[in-house]
This record gives sequence, C-alpha cells and structure tokens, in this order.
Amino acid sequence: HVNGERLWQSLMELAQLGATVKGGVCRLALTDLDRQARDLFVRWCEEAGCTVTVDGVGNIFARRPGRNAALAPVMTGSHIDTQPTGGKFDGCFGVLAGVEVLRTLNDLGIQTEAPLEVVVWTNEEGSRFAPCMMGSGVFAEKFTLEETLAKRDAEGISVGEALNAIGYAGPRTVSGHAVGAYFEAHIEQGPILEDQGKTIGVVLGALGQKWFDLTLKGVEAHAGPTPMHLRKDALVGAAAVVAAVNRVALEHQPHACGTVGCLQAYPGSRNVIPGEVRMTLDFRHLQPERLDSMIEAVRGVIEATCAKHGLSFELTPTADFPPLYFDQGCIEAVRGAAAGLGLSHMDIVSGAGHDAIFLAELGPAGMIFVPCEGGISHNEIENAAPTDLAAGCAVLLRAMLAASVA
Amino acid sequence: HVNGERLWQSLMELAQLGATVKGGVCRLALTDLDRQARDLFVRWCEEAGCTVTVDGVGNIFARRPGRNAALAPVMTGSHIDTQPTGGKFDGCFGVLAGVEVLRTLNDLGIQTEAPLEVVVWTNEEGSRFAPCMMGSGVFAEKFTLEETLAKRDAEGISVGEALNAIGYAGPRTVSGHAVGAYFEAHIEQGPILEDQGKTIGVVLGALGQKWFDLTLKGVEAHAGPTPMHLRKDALVGAAAVVAAVNRVALEHQPHACGTVGCLQAYPGSRNVIPGEVRMTLDFRHLQPERLDSMIEAVRGVIEATCAKHGLSFELTPTADFPPLYFDQGCIEAVRGAAAGLGLSHMDIVSGAGHDAIFLAELGPAGMIFVPCEGGISHNEIENAAPTDLAAGCAVLLRAMLAASVA
Ligand SMILES: NC(=O)NCCC(=O)O
Ligand SMILES: NC(=O)NCCC(=O)O
Repeated sequence: HVNGERLWQSLMELAQLGATVKGGVCRLALTDLDRQARDLFVRWCEEAGCTVTVDGVGNIFARRPGRNAALAPVMTGSHIDTQPTGGKFDGCFGVLAGVEVLRTLNDLGIQTEAPLEVVVWTNEEGSRFAPCMMGSGVFAEKFTLEETLAKRDAEGISVGEALNAIGYAGPRTVSGHAVGAYFEAHIEQGPILEDQGKTIGVVLGALGQKWFDLTLKGVEAHAGPTPMHLRKDALVGAAAVVAAVNRVALEHQPHACGTVGCLQAYPGSRNVIPGEVRMTLDFRHLQPERLDSMIEAVRGVIEATCAKHGLSFELTPTADFPPLYFDQGCIEAVRGAAAGLGLSHMDIVSGAGHDAIFLAELGPAGMIFVPCEGGISHNEIENAAPTDLAAGCAVLLRAMLAASVA
Repeated sequence: HVNGERLWQSLMELAQLGATVKGGVCRLALTDLDRQARDLFVRWCEEAGCTVTVDGVGNIFARRPGRNAALAPVMTGSHIDTQPTGGKFDGCFGVLAGVEVLRTLNDLGIQTEAPLEVVVWTNEEGSRFAPCMMGSGVFAEKFTLEETLAKRDAEGISVGEALNAIGYAGPRTVSGHAVGAYFEAHIEQGPILEDQGKTIGVVLGALGQKWFDLTLKGVEAHAGPTPMHLRKDALVGAAAVVAAVNRVALEHQPHACGTVGCLQAYPGSRNVIPGEVRMTLDFRHLQPERLDSMIEAVRGVIEATCAKHGLSFELTPTADFPPLYFDQGCIEAVRGAAAGLGLSHMDIVSGAGHDAIFLAELGPAGMIFVPCEGGISHNEIENAAPTDLAAGCAVLLRAMLAASVA
C-alpha cells in the first residue's frame, strides 16, 4: 500500500516553506513562499513521471497518463496556501496524498485505465485574496477568470499581478474540462472523528453557508449622565444578536452552526455608550430550508432588538453557498475503500467549504476526512497522526483506482 | 446681572481654536491649540484685572483680590481641553462663566470680602493623557506631580515635555492651597434637565465609578466543522456579560449605570470562533454598597458564563472613584440662587466625573448644571441654549458672592 513514512516526510518538507516559530505555517496565496511550494510540487510530480500544466488562474495539474487517453481524468487535489497562522496539514495533506498515490502506483507498476490528475488549486483559504476556493471556483465556472484576476489584496496587488510575479499565470485554459471523478483527502478541521475514535470520515456532503455583515446603529453618548432607560446602546443590541445566533443554531441541530466571528464597537471608549457595532454572521446548515429558518429566526431577533433599543440596522449578504451532497458512487467508493482496508470509519458532513464542493459541479466528487488533534485547524498548533494520514491516503488510492477502471 | 451675550461671544471665540467641520472642537490637552486657548483665557483675565499664576501641572489661576487677603479664595473653574470629537461647551462653559462673573463684578463695581479665583484645570478629559481630571487631581493631592509629569501620550510624549513645549509649566506650587469654596458650572451632559423642562440642576453629588478591563479566553476554532456544543466561544460569553451589565444596572435604579464601551473579538475572522474577547466595564452608582452589589452581580454572571462555556477570565480594576456628596451649604447656595433668580430648577446627580469632585476634598464644593441639547455631549453636535448658559452663569455669580461674604 501507500508509504506513510514518505508521505509524512513530504508533508514536513513542504511545511518548511513558511514555517512559523509556533510550529505552524504562514504561506499566503501567490507569495514567493507559495511559489517555492508550487515549484517543489512540480518537481515531485515531474520526478513521478507526470506532465505538469498550469492554467490562467494558477491551478497546477500533474497528469499521469492512463491506458485510455480519451477518458476524462480521475482527479484529486487540494491547496498549499495557508492561513496567516495556519498549520502543516490543512490542504497540504490532500495535495501530498495525491502525490503519494502517484508514487505508490509507480512503485507497484500500476497503469490505470483513465488518466489521473493531482491538482493544486489556487488560493483556497481566501486570506490574502477573497473569495476563498478561488482556483476551483474559476475551474468550475463559478467565477470568471477576468473578475478573479482583478481581485486585490489589502496592499492593492491584484491576483493577476501576483500570478505574473511568481510565474504561475499558465497557458492552459481555465474552464471546459471534463472530470471523470474527483476525490479530496483533508483533515476534518473539527473534533468528531477524534471524539468517536474513527480513522476515516466518509464525507456525505457539506453544509450550506450564508454569510452576512450586520451593522447596528444607536446613539453615542456619555456613559455616566445618560440614564439607562434613555440609551440607544448598539452593543447591548449586538449582544442580543450574538446570543440569538448561538441559541438558534443550537435549536436547529443537527448539522447547524451559527457564528459571530467579528465584532467591533464604536467609538470604542470606556466611558462612551457605543453608537455603532459592526459584526459578521456565519450560518451553516445541511438543509436549505433549515438554513433559511435559522436566518429568519435571527432576523426576527435583530428586528425586535432594534425596536426595543431604538437602533437601526443594515444586514448585507456576503456569501451564499447551498448545501451540497456528494455523488453516491463516490461516497460508496470511499466507504468501500475504508472497509476494505479494515479502517474504522463513519459518515460525516463537512462543516467547512472545500475545493471538492466546486468540483462536484463538474463530475462525481467525494471527500475523505482524517482526524486532526483536538479538532483544531486554522491554528499553528494544528496536528494530525502519521498513521491517520497514511490511512486516508490509502483510502484515496483505492477510491481513485476504483474510479479509474470503472 | 450677567451679560449672556458677552458670555456667548466668548464661548464662540474660544470654540474657534480647534473648530471642526462638524461644528465641534478638537483641542486636546497640552497641544498648541490648548496653548492658544490658555493664552486667550490669560489675556481675558488680565484684562479683567486679575493676577494670573500657573502651577507645575499647568493649572491656571486668575485671582481677583477681595477686601480680606487672608481669606481662602472662593474659586470656580473647569477645563478647556476637549475630546477628539468634542463640543464647544463641555468644560469651556464653566471657565467662561467664571470669566463672566469677573467681568460682571467689574461692571457693577463690586468688591468681595474673600478673593475670587477662576481656574483652568489641566487635562480634565483624559483623552491624550490618562487619567482624566489630572490637574485638579494633582491640586487635591490625589496624584503626585512627579507621577503625573511622567504620564505619556500614545506618541510617547510626557505631560512634563508637553507642558514645557507650550510654556505652561508654571512656578506656583501645586498643592497645599486653602479653598474657601469651589463652584463649577457645567452642561449636564445628559438629558434629564431638558426632559424635565428645568433650567438649573442643583448638583447633589456624583456617582461613584468603578471601571474594569475584562478578558475572556476560549478556544479559537473553525466556524464550520466545530459543533456548537463543543465550542468555547469567548464572544458568546462576552455577549452574556454585556447583557448582564445592562440588566444589573436597570435592576439597581435609581442612580445606577452600567456600560461596556469597548469590545473586540479576536482573531476577528468571519469563519473563526473568537478565542478571546477584550472589553471594558464601567459601573456607576450613588451608593457605595449598591455599586459593589452591581459589580458582585456581574461577577457572578461572568463566573457562571465562563463555567458554562468553558472560558477563563481576567477582571482588572482600572478606576475607582467613590460616590461623592457635595457640601450642604454649597448645595443650598446654588438652590437659593436659582430660586432667587426665579429659575426653574431641580436636584440632580452628576453621572460624570468633574474637577469639582477633587476640589470637594479641599473645601466646600458644589456644581451648577444647565441643559444641553438632547443630552448629547462628547460629540461634535453638543449644543446648549444661550439663555440657559446665562442663567447658569447668574446662579454661579450669586453662589460665589454668597460664599465670599460668608
Ligand atoms: N476549509 C476551509 O477552511 N474553507 C474556508 C471556508 C469556510 O469557512 O468553510
Ligand atoms: N465630565 C466628563 O466627561 N468626565 C470624564 C470622566 C467620566 O467618564 O465621568
């Protein structure tokens, strides 16, 4: 089977590029560190006998020919950009599991029927350039190349400029490609597998996401001489909204999340009643009606709270991804591979967005999760066990082999 | 009586120094604009026949001799520094009402028994240099001169350096002065007088204040894959604290305030559960036991919330002023002056800190409030009616005259 030691060594070698003192990785999309990581991936794939091409948004495709060149490729991949305080495994595991699949097939002298492709998708994290899952989104025609190349980072550098600067604006066309099947291995980024003592998560689908910006406006006034009953305190209103987002998510279980990630009170002076609060709302659910029901419940609280405290509000949508169910055949391929390898496994739903979600628009897609320590991700202390990573890679190999002969 | 037109003209002339486009004033303590305002005050007082001295922390004393030089002076004053987005009246009204008292006495050829002093206290606002009420605090020996001169602004400039730069580090000793009586006229900075349709607030005392910094720590994690029941969301905890501060203040009426002025969630990313929240708590009450009871009630909520959500917390005191009751004689002097002038008046409690609170440590002190439009202060739109300001000044004149012959 796969060489878990080799997979681990590659992960550790890649993690050198942008290594942080706290043991994490800071390798933002389309920086020179990203270029170095891409160069390393390209070298490893060429050494494994692949043909490497790069498309107009910087996605890198390493192709291992099959017996039948007319078949659409069986693909795998993920991303090698990281959060500013990211870990070694988020994304990189999926890419290097793909590389390990290539190496294992070479070791075993196996030729597949369909060609295989291992892909590095550009800017999955969305940290430097929004939105996230940018490369796979362009590949799946969710975003146009033109609008995407024009997106700018906080310094005003565009995606197009950054791609040219690192030499990864490639000639391959970005869209119109057939996908035989797509599998993506990823750390769970949550605590369920660890909690349940399972090695493999058979990913059934992913939660739908709706994000909003919410601004509450009251009246800034002095914290001493302004009587409580005459205040229009935007933060008191915001606190009711934070509580409601949490409560409504608990009431919409299972597969419901509600998070306020950003909240700032203005003007932000100890003895001034906040006249304005800006916050973000992130709702996730597996059922579209339940997702909307969460949002309606919170909207009701926002309206009632604003009426009670004399506030006005503005609620602006910033992201909208519907819930996604992966292809039944791919789900069964992953489950079958785990069972065949004697690995403990369970069905699971992804709470996070992944490139596989966009790939599912183009062909049958599925995902394989492995546990991460304490369920912690997007954090420099992110960790995963070498045996679990090897197990996930072995499942990926089996699933891809099954798809490539089908 | 006093010349309301002249008082208004002086207020408008002073408001030119640091005037903002929104009609407010930005004249931070010990800046060159503050120097210009001080120079104008000094000129006006010298023109009114006063002797002007400056002490080591920059407090300016304009003295009008009385018949009996051995008597401790009857003083009035306030401040001419402003908030960064401040108004024309907060502080300046008290100082210029004092100047108008001098001018009126000159017009009427009245000599008082005790000397009179009009004082500009350095840095009441505390915006550039903390703490607030700095000059009066040094005068009342609440703070030492040495520690005060060493306080630095955000740019690292010390109070001592700033005083020297504007030429207002004076030779007069900062402490040990006798105070015959102290009266301070001020806009209310709250909505009660306007709401009740009264011209004069007879200030009985000021709320005690206890301020805290509160940090809540949970665990930063991904907003999608982390199930609701396993989260340690610091912001959900903070929301419960904000709600409790508000509720507890409502339950401790009358004369109770509870405000969270600053709140920030970290790391502050849309799809990351906040692992840390830093916030400020401002509690005010007229009764010390009720002030402590508010704090104990909120502390109970903090403890219960942290236990419920798996958070830790740190609660650090940052300010502690006990409630203050002004001198009964001064209160009656203000009430009697208002009644004698036929002005509608009511007893009121100051929700804000004022220089008079420190002066009350040194001698009998009292305050006179006049309404401000909508109760709004610490805001560029702060406004007050010329007739109300003239009325407050007339009350100040009567109260000072009564004290100076007593
Ligand atoms: N995998 C991942 O972290 N994606 C970012 C988008 C999300 O918040 O789900
Ligand atoms: N008058 C005034 O605004 N003082 C500042 C201190 C306080 O918050 O009460």
